[in-house]
Amino acid sequence: MASGSWEEFFAVHLPPTDFEDNRTLLKEFCERHDKYGNKIVLVTSGGTTVPLEHNTVRFVDNFSAGTRGSASAEYFLEHGYAVIFMHRQKSLEPFTRHFSGQKLLDMLEIQERGPNTTITVRPDSVDVLAPVLVRYKAALAAGAVLQVAFTSVSEYFWLLRAACECLARLGPRALLYLAAAVSDFYIPKDRVPTHKMQSESGAPVIQLQLVPKMLAPLVNLWVPAAYVVSFKLETDESLLIPKARAALEKYKHKMVVANMLQSRHHRVILVSPEASQEIVLTREDIHAGVDIESAIVSEIVRLHAEHLAGGGAGAALPAGAGASDAHESRDSVTRTAHRSVCLVRKGSQLFAAIPLVCTGPNCARIVWYKSELFDTLLSALVLCTVGL
Amino acid sequence: MASGSWEEFFAVHLPPTDFEDNRTLLKEFCERHDKYGNKIVLVTSGGTTVPLEHNTVRFVDNFSAGTRGSASAEYFLEHGYAVIFMHRQKSLEPFTRHFSGQKLLDMLEIQERGPNTTITVRPDSVDVLAPVLVRYKAALAAGAVLQVAFTSVSEYFWLLRAACECLARLGPRALLYLAAAVSDFYIPKDRVPTHKMQSESGAPVIQLQLVPKMLAPLVNLWVPAAYVVSFKLETDESLLIPKARAALEKYKHKMVVANMLQSRHHRVILVSPEASQEIVLTREDIHAGVDIESAIVSEIVRLHAEHLAGGGAGAALPAGAGASDAHESRDSVTRTAHRSVCLVRKGSQLFAAIPLVCTGPNCARIVWYKSELFDTLLSALVLCTVGL
Repeated sequence: MASGSWEEFFAVHLPPTDFEDNRTLLKEFCERHDKYGNKIVLVTSGGTTVPLEHNTVRFVDNFSAGTRGSASAEYFLEHGYAVIFMHRQKSLEPFTRHFSGQKLLDMLEIQERGPNTTITVRPDSVDVLAPVLVRYKAALAAGAVLQVAFTSVSEYFWLLRAACECLARLGPRALLYLAAAVSDFYIPKDRVPTHKMQSESGAPVIQLQLVPKMLAPLVNLWVPAAYVVSFKLETDESLLIPKARAALEKYKHKMVVANMLQSRHHRVILVSPEASQEIVLTREDIHAGVDIESAIVSEIVRLHAEHLAGGGAGAALPAGAGASDAHESRDSVTRTAHRSVCLVRKGSQLFAAIPLVCTGPNCARIVWYKSELFDTLLSALVLCTVGL
Repeated sequence: MASGSWEEFFAVHLPPTDFEDNRTLLKEFCERHDKYGNKIVLVTSGGTTVPLEHNTVRFVDNFSAGTRGSASAEYFLEHGYAVIFMHRQKSLEPFTRHFSGQKLLDMLEIQERGPNTTITVRPDSVDVLAPVLVRYKAALAAGAVLQVAFTSVSEYFWLLRAACECLARLGPRALLYLAAAVSDFYIPKDRVPTHKMQSESGAPVIQLQLVPKMLAPLVNLWVPAAYVVSFKLETDESLLIPKARAALEKYKHKMVVANMLQSRHHRVILVSPEASQEIVLTREDIHAGVDIESAIVSEIVRLHAEHLAGGGAGAALPAGAGASDAHESRDSVTRTAHRSVCLVRKGSQLFAAIPLVCTGPNCARIVWYKSELFDTLLSALVLCTVGL
């Protein structure tokens, strides 16, 4: 069955109940960061659902834990972006993604002293927790993240369009990183039964309809000047690149991040209209716990910067260029291209990401972390912050 | 389409890859607690999925966050049960359920002192976190919880049968609390496509088949002496009690906990072959954050005890009896019916649940918590632990 138009979809599906609240938050966030000339990335993350009943007991879901999106959001923050993190309710979120299940509770120790009872993190867990906590608190303090949540594909589309309407004012400074696993099929609202389907009535046949492709109005109408990156997940390798290229030709956006379900955590291909570039984690990277999102985001940030420098024209991928971050292993303090963040590294470990995002009259909040451990790096760190 | 038999289901669907590991864990857990004469409850929690593709990108899911199961597991621990918590991967878990999202990170403060950096819980969060942390550590120390996870309905059935095989040795001391939202429909393995369905091929029609009702072999063959409680979730009130009664007649188990999707957090009906009993939280209970699971579990524990005392005969619900725990508001130290846990209350707040589960030669591990705050209660607490 053919898909309806996107206008029809919005006409038939009502906005979610908390829509106006979220729209206000999005508007305020974009206006604030636009005022200071910051770049904003919209990261979508997790899978959307298609309800099979109005009083939803059953639904069709899309496989996605939210790993790609939640990790990427952290790296965009390191690169000085303000981040709208639009995620599936209960999917992985930046920072907390490192501590799933009972990991955090297991790190805690209680010292019972009556009314002066205290709870502390076990000394052997401080090294693991502290860097994440510092980055989390820095992002909070800078007001650099806005989180909004969706569940169904209809909620996702309403939020996506609202975010685009707010991002349009940023022109090419807006980056869209559409990592959510969006349903291709849905059941039109008027064919969804009101109550839970009864197993006594026998097994149901579910007739799905194609979801309209929102990338078309998004690229052409909603945020025509933005740098738009979409994702393509396949299970059949032979379809991967052809489908990525077909999407670029059809929607005229800047990049498709193509990946296979089976290898998505250690291999992706960045496909642009001009070239394609593979990013692969080495066995050592994987063993060291390197996130491939670090390399993906570094490369996209570089291309977005070129796009901005060229006044919005396409920035080509360097032929065969490997992304640098995943392979970084020197002690270093580096300033990212746009002078909006300082990265302090000790070998392959990132000790501090110092966001220099303007957030008010006192531009450049600096977070010092463990700087006393880096005698030789300290002067470099100071140098890095000069001349903002 | 009619459902196949349960034997056919197990013949067609292979066990999950980590099945043997989980079976070993289940066996060891049941043998250990059986040796000390403990009661074991199997709590199933969260929804099962039905994959639409072998390389799963899309699946049909059943709505369930795992609230009922994860909360109930905590209350069963308080009542001295050993708990097998069989839950949907990433659904809510006991103890951590209280701290979703960034709540725990927000409670933490970092004190940077170079190599002596420490992280502590903010003083104003200690009161919230400490009681949960104490109960969590006590359960861990007593080896009183085993967690196993499933995703698909086929994984769920394999684990369920394995758990039953291990629980059978406990006879009537085994309690099954089947709160998971199990798929009624699935796609037989040989009709599931290998690769991701392509939207270019048009919208698919999904022909589902009925899942065989596992409650039949479970009650009659796998754990014939156990106390079995199933759950019924509906969205149409007129179907709720008739369907609960029909299930009891068909499967001959002990109880159906019936609830409506819309009101499930503050109203349930315990339906047994002899009677039905409504549990409703008052407005004050809801405002005070009382879990309805506290009352459900108290009542089921009482009925299970009567069942045990009667040598396995049916224990009737008292006509119109309200469950006591949700309305408890005295300062008290009470010993549960089977002398396996001490509950220390200050008004409506539970300050300590002291599991006295036998776990080895040193029977009755005692966890003291904030006992110095309870001068008048301390002697009662000591009395409570005498005579084990």
